[in-house]
Amino acid sequence: MATRTDRPVVGIDLGGTNMQVGVVDSTGRIIGRAKKKTRAEEGPAKVMGRIHDGIREACEEAKIPARALLAVGIGAPGAIDPVTGIVLEAPNLRWNHIPLAKTLAKKVGRPVYVDNDVRSAIFGEHQLGAGRGCSELMGVWIGTGIGGGLILRDELYHGYTNTAGEVGHVTLFPGMPPGSTSLENNCSRTAIVERIIKLIKTNHKSIIPKLADNDLSDVKARVVAMAFARNDRVTKMVVESAAENLGIAIASVVTLLGLQRVVIGGGLTEAMGERLVGLIRRSVHKHAAPEINRHVEVVKTELEADAGLLGAAMLARKGLSSRSRTRVIRA
Amino acid sequence: MATRTDRPVVGIDLGGTNMQVGVVDSTGRIIGRAKKKTRAEEGPAKVMGRIHDGIREACEEAKIPARALLAVGIGAPGAIDPVTGIVLEAPNLRWNHIPLAKTLAKKVGRPVYVDNDVRSAIFGEHQLGAGRGCSELMGVWIGTGIGGGLILRDELYHGYTNTAGEVGHVTLFPGMPPGSTSLENNCSRTAIVERIIKLIKTNHKSIIPKLADNDLSDVKARVVAMAFARNDRVTKMVVESAAENLGIAIASVVTLLGLQRVVIGGGLTEAMGERLVGLIRRSVHKHAAPEINRHVEVVKTELEADAGLLGAAMLARKGLSSRSRTRVIRA
Repeated sequence: MATRTDRPVVGIDLGGTNMQVGVVDSTGRIIGRAKKKTRAEEGPAKVMGRIHDGIREACEEAKIPARALLAVGIGAPGAIDPVTGIVLEAPNLRWNHIPLAKTLAKKVGRPVYVDNDVRSAIFGEHQLGAGRGCSELMGVWIGTGIGGGLILRDELYHGYTNTAGEVGHVTLFPGMPPGSTSLENNCSRTAIVERIIKLIKTNHKSIIPKLADNDLSDVKARVVAMAFARNDRVTKMVVESAAENLGIAIASVVTLLGLQRVVIGGGLTEAMGERLVGLIRRSVHKHAAPEINRHVEVVKTELEADAGLLGAAMLARKGLSSRSRTRVIRA
Repeated sequence: MATRTDRPVVGIDLGGTNMQVGVVDSTGRIIGRAKKKTRAEEGPAKVMGRIHDGIREACEEAKIPARALLAVGIGAPGAIDPVTGIVLEAPNLRWNHIPLAKTLAKKVGRPVYVDNDVRSAIFGEHQLGAGRGCSELMGVWIGTGIGGGLILRDELYHGYTNTAGEVGHVTLFPGMPPGSTSLENNCSRTAIVERIIKLIKTNHKSIIPKLADNDLSDVKARVVAMAFARNDRVTKMVVESAAENLGIAIASVVTLLGLQRVVIGGGLTEAMGERLVGLIRRSVHKHAAPEINRHVEVVKTELEADAGLLGAAMLARKGLSSRSRTRVIRA
């Protein structure tokens, strides 16, 4: 007979546009899935209703009743209090002080845990992916913005403010005008695309407009990856410079914290893979203190787009035996 | 009768030039002291002999026998493995892989703990000084160099490499020539004095040469503090710029880790006091993320020159009940 902790959990990656729901068994395998639109504009009650629907659908696919679940974990964008499970501020969801854990626990009848989406993803890598067996770890997620998370002494680190891991806010260029000093404002996919477009508009040749069907209003990570792979000069120059700067900021943090490993993830990383991670790795090793370079590894996400979902699932599973500050909100 | 943990401990601040030894009672009061020259050039055995002498003298002043001590704690400069008590690399002492804890424990007949000197000082502030009651704390020590240490989840944080806290190595100016990119190379007392002298040599007027008896080869923190207090223009400009940059780097770390408090210490801070700390505070609040600014405090060291000694004493006291990685080396 299955013991209590053998029971499956649900992990949810709650984004501003879509939510990914997965039933995850005790080995970390996803045995049922559901994907739904978030539709934040309809308000929190409707969104939570759709989360509940997603849980039911994923359980159906996994052929288990929702009451068989051990717990539910959610990675949500924005500032989260993991102790109370309240979403303090999530601009992408238009949420302010929404008691997500408590409300959903009542609906589903199972304990619910909530944490920040990027932190969940990094916890996923720590438990099941590229961060396994590593007690001191940073994740850096490069996409629309730059997010991050820290595993310190084998546990997710939240800091006093529950906001720890915000590597995107590291100041890289002091003295520059406000809005252009931070890592995020220089090295996110958004910043990279902006710089490429600026160069194109000043008559630098590039295959980006062709790859993006001449629509430069929303250049995707996939397009940047293609242009880079085809040796587009402008794209190579901008991406290489961003990777160099990412490496400098990461080297500072790795040296400050004496980290063992850095996992690089996020949309741009999934699209570019080792092409991007290799550049960042080279820069980290160039700029970190020598005694750090003997140890530190810079690796690519293993769980890719499932990192958030799997991490949320692992938070739900871990939560019950955790010594950390995260408290469960019971149904 | 005194219980076991009521017994006094010895704390030692082992510097490249001098060592400070203190017997510390269970309330954190120093009840006996000794100060000795380090004389590193005579080799580790002689230095350890003088440490032993210092312990005996301090115990004499405290009117207790050395065997009454609970334990001995040492803050040593350089890279330390706190688990084994080995000094891995200490250029100031000319030591390489010296088993300080083991050797001294045999001599003294009491358990000996060793950690890095700056980390010890910050642990002192956490236990007895400006960091009391604060679970997430950074110390930044500004002197010849810039050292630092972190208290995370109420415990001294060492990282995977046992080097955590090296805030002086944070890259502040990427793209600058090697040797001028880091916080330490821009904002230590050494860097500040170098910049002042450069300006004086290019005909900027300053009272520094007069205050330093026209010897610019070794301008002390005290001299910088006096010139600043007397509104010397060159000194004000250089110190204000250094404090601004210190605040920028500290704001990055405070935002990354979601810290509650930053304690500023070290030789330059002791000499300049709130004049320096106020400038750094203003810069941190200007550059940290808004949600961090609601919480974070930037304060001056309370223990000043005794921080290292008291911290080492508290490490010795704490060590016996610690759940951390630090292991005791028994006699």
